[in-house]
Amino acid sequence: MTLSTFAEARRAFADNRDTPRDYLERCIAAIDAREPTVRAWVVLNIDGARKAADASTARWKAGQPLSIVDGLPIGIKDLIHTSDMPTQMNSPIYDGWRSGWDSASVYWLRHGGAVILGKTVTTEFGVGASGPTTNPHDPARTPGGSSSGSAAAVAAQMAPVTLGTQAMGSIIRPSSYCGVYGFKPSFGALNRGGGHSLIPSQSYIGTHANSLEDVWQVAAYIAETAGGDGGHAGMQGGLDLPAARKPMRLLRLKTSAWDETDAASRSAFEAYLDRLRAHGVEILDPDSVAAARDFEADFTDWLKVYMDIVCWEMRWPMAMYAEKGAHLIGERATGFYKHGLAMTREQYRTALDRRRRYGEQFATFAAVADAIITPATPGPAPIGLKFTGSPGFNALSSGLGVPALSLPKLTVDGLPLGVQLVGFRERDADLAAIAAWVDRIPG
Amino acid sequence: MTLSTFAEARRAFADNRDTPRDYLERCIAAIDAREPTVRAWVVLNIDGARKAADASTARWKAGQPLSIVDGLPIGIKDLIHTSDMPTQMNSPIYDGWRSGWDSASVYWLRHGGAVILGKTVTTEFGVGASGPTTNPHDPARTPGGSSSGSAAAVAAQMAPVTLGTQAMGSIIRPSSYCGVYGFKPSFGALNRGGGHSLIPSQSYIGTHANSLEDVWQVAAYIAETAGGDGGHAGMQGGLDLPAARKPMRLLRLKTSAWDETDAASRSAFEAYLDRLRAHGVEILDPDSVAAARDFEADFTDWLKVYMDIVCWEMRWPMAMYAEKGAHLIGERATGFYKHGLAMTREQYRTALDRRRRYGEQFATFAAVADAIITPATPGPAPIGLKFTGSPGFNALSSGLGVPALSLPKLTVDGLPLGVQLVGFRERDADLAAIAAWVDRIPG
Repeated sequence: MTLSTFAEARRAFADNRDTPRDYLERCIAAIDAREPTVRAWVVLNIDGARKAADASTARWKAGQPLSIVDGLPIGIKDLIHTSDMPTQMNSPIYDGWRSGWDSASVYWLRHGGAVILGKTVTTEFGVGASGPTTNPHDPARTPGGSSSGSAAAVAAQMAPVTLGTQAMGSIIRPSSYCGVYGFKPSFGALNRGGGHSLIPSQSYIGTHANSLEDVWQVAAYIAETAGGDGGHAGMQGGLDLPAARKPMRLLRLKTSAWDETDAASRSAFEAYLDRLRAHGVEILDPDSVAAARDFEADFTDWLKVYMDIVCWEMRWPMAMYAEKGAHLIGERATGFYKHGLAMTREQYRTALDRRRRYGEQFATFAAVADAIITPATPGPAPIGLKFTGSPGFNALSSGLGVPALSLPKLTVDGLPLGVQLVGFRERDADLAAIAAWVDRIPG
Repeated sequence: MTLSTFAEARRAFADNRDTPRDYLERCIAAIDAREPTVRAWVVLNIDGARKAADASTARWKAGQPLSIVDGLPIGIKDLIHTSDMPTQMNSPIYDGWRSGWDSASVYWLRHGGAVILGKTVTTEFGVGASGPTTNPHDPARTPGGSSSGSAAAVAAQMAPVTLGTQAMGSIIRPSSYCGVYGFKPSFGALNRGGGHSLIPSQSYIGTHANSLEDVWQVAAYIAETAGGDGGHAGMQGGLDLPAARKPMRLLRLKTSAWDETDAASRSAFEAYLDRLRAHGVEILDPDSVAAARDFEADFTDWLKVYMDIVCWEMRWPMAMYAEKGAHLIGERATGFYKHGLAMTREQYRTALDRRRRYGEQFATFAAVADAIITPATPGPAPIGLKFTGSPGFNALSSGLGVPALSLPKLTVDGLPLGVQLVGFRERDADLAAIAAWVDRIPG
């Protein structure tokens, strides 16, 4: 049975054809059926969710929903604080830990009547050891990370929408691997207040769902209520998914990630570009645009630059956590913060400058193309649960502060692969309008 | 008895003329003598401090201090988290609350051997109801706020250095009223990680001390170790106070705060400007500089603009705190967040734009002057403990992200009044060099 999107459900609530409680029960049935294998959730609050769904049902029956998220069962990545559940970050240091507060995004979702269903599995602090979640399309494969549980829960129809976070590839990558829509807005577009911020200059809250409309609307609702980060007015655009707009030109960037793609994924992506061309969209090759050629040449060192930024920013609190017991921190996260501790401020400054220059180059593409198009990952989900996959194609939007969407358009060897659209800074609604048009073109 | 500055003490530790433990005991003696009246501290950790000072004493005797802050007894404003003491923010909601962690600044201070002596009184969340602290120069008067205890503890010689925070006037104002040096660096210059961030786009960590060298060095040490906020490489300059540099020209700004000054304070400040002129410094009047004249005309609405920013940004978490009990939040803080809840995103965006334009105008002053000079407050500390004084003269640096220093140069009616120097964004060391020269000119 397929769970309807929340936008469809909301229309059914309004028409008395469905209720939030019944909708929630369908999510719970999917959890009962699939959670033993998928393991998307760290904590579930079924009783609390039923109570919230009943209250929402009463409001819908009275014709008085609180907001567009009233009755929405939503999973919250376990880096984001919740007043009624622990926030454990896949770290034994935070075992059972409760902040006692809702993060800004959760606070406003709850106030709008959303049903906070549970906490979804993250990798350790969003950067380290992976959790137990498996890919709903093949339990031998990773769901991707770090928002592993958020993408898998949506793919397994356990919740229509979940919140994720991204610093390298953590929203777009698992969305691609799990075959769901993923949306990472512009830097600062959604208020991160109260969440865990290991990497303040390069982290984001975003959404996973089974439709473009749902990822957009829930993000737009957060922007409308919680606003953006301090100093940012919040994501551009209104609560409705912008009307579809056909792109004139899409710039196809390869970057170093193209070398990681396998033959089947390459040909699936090339075939998709051909379909877009057949619909009259011009696909610009990076070699045909001087600025893109220069960017491709410069952007080859992104991994070193980003690692310097990420590792420096996490020195505190990671070094502080290490005092509680260095053995409680996984090997991968340990490597990161130790790299940070060995760095100088000058190295960090150099990395920031370099990242800023990438962003300035990228911004010039707005003059030649409506958006950038790439595969969302170099291929479908790899086998194994330890490695959550390459963030190569996600480096553009993670570091440059620009919005990105993964659309579940391709199938490679029977597994999902996302098409990624990347837009321009603080022009999230423009990207969504282009994506709404592209989304109609089947893979 | 006067407590030596920490820079002097450090030289004495190195020469075996003094020890961190003896130095700490002089702080404790001042606390014993004056705390019953001054009430600067929420929590003291005398045992822990003695232990830390003994360890530091051993390191100095072995000629192996950990850093330039080894043995420094320091008070931490009670908005900033400490692993060994509660963080209560002058709010009953946080009564006895412990995060269990050190904020980034405290973490690195502790690792450099600093002696974390206690938590100093703040107003409620740094914005609301004032605490019990009295002005060390007159217990009937406010010490200023919100870093009330931090400034008072230094003025009463209970600690050579304390950390404060500022969003409107919270470091510079109490420094002026208490007759101590206060330093609020550029936006992003000192890592706020782990502290309480009610107003993310307009808050700062800074220092209070009895010398310019001490406020500079402790801030520079934090910048060197904890770095800046994510995305900022941290405060410009090295660990040594920059060499004094005579300013050619200082721009004197009046802004709306000048109308609040009393006659005695005006004449004390004018006399100080005359002394600077007598030493060959040109004082530019705002009327003589077209850009300054325009700025003065535009900057008249700063209070409305800042209140819109401050109140919007504190909606969350204040609305969330209110769920724990609205009666637990003071009248002033309640007024602020309710104003925020009644605002639209568009109003916030308008306020941000306006603040950005102020900053762009202000930046042009760097072409005509070495720094800006004003009184640090419109007059000495007012009578009463409830009202912590006007932030009028602190609006420049709080909103525009530029560094500011208060130098305890003037005496009005037997009470201290600071001279404020305001510099240019991310040019903290340049401001400190100018201040080092001005600091030699007596009031």
